[in-house]
Amino acid sequence: MVNQQFATAVHVLTALAFNRKQLMSSDILARSVNTNPVVIRRLLSLLAKAELVTTTRGKAGGVQLSKDPNQINLKDVYLAVSPLDPIAPRDKSPHKECAVSCSMHAIMTTVSTGTQKATLKYLESQKLSDLIKKIPKS
Amino acid sequence: MVNQQFATAVHVLTALAFNRKQLMSSDILARSVNTNPVVIRRLLSLLAKAELVTTTRGKAGGVQLSKDPNQINLKDVYLAVSPLDPIAPRDKSPHKECAVSCSMHAIMTTVSTGTQKATLKYLESQKLSDLIKKIPKS
Repeated sequence: MVNQQFATAVHVLTALAFNRKQLMSSDILARSVNTNPVVIRRLLSLLAKAELVTTTRGKAGGVQLSKDPNQINLKDVYLAVSPLDPIAPRDKSPHKECAVSCSMHAIMTTVSTGTQKATLKYLESQKLSDLIKKIPKS
Repeated sequence: MVNQQFATAVHVLTALAFNRKQLMSSDILARSVNTNPVVIRRLLSLLAKAELVTTTRGKAGGVQLSKDPNQINLKDVYLAVSPLDPIAPRDKSPHKECAVSCSMHAIMTTVSTGTQKATLKYLESQKLSDLIKKIPKS
């Protein structure tokens, strides 16, 4: 669910980066993503909050990137749509007489934080400007 | 779901590493994890397949690590329980007339592979022998 949202956000922002010179409507973006415009509008509001896109209202309105594609990396996108940790500590209560059980939440929090850090470091290295290089120009 | 399985697997293997000198039953492990023994047995069969644990059958039987805790890292564990990519490419069909849409699967596969690699590299650095250092000895 959340992963799909990240993938959809990357798709939308890549489309905006590729079509830099024009405002795009949520309907056109929805057609590119193959989803409902409502999903796109909900997502755009998260991306606007994170200052990644700017929306112009009105008949000739639409959405565009707020910054140059080389100033937006996938860490920004990931944090904008706020997914949960991919590896979350288990939320069950520990068996109080078991030292291992009582330590597991702290151990898994460390693992989760480390995984998150490694993921974000990689995502930070991926800019929208790199992504659009992979799209053939017609 | 799968993340929970990874966390449960780490819990079980940490318990086995901490109690290195004794065989443990799936019932005792289930109590430590606070789950059903059936869940533990299903998991142990995956961990045995990956040669991380060895099971001795019979009344005095139980399970133990197959290797020293410093020879098992969390990448081994992650791969043993085979989670899906945390960031999977979207599985919707592309809008064929849109160059961005047609390129997104390849782009997201690259992102997904990169994320997976970064995660596994971190997990590989975390050994069971490091984890058990965080558990207070009674």
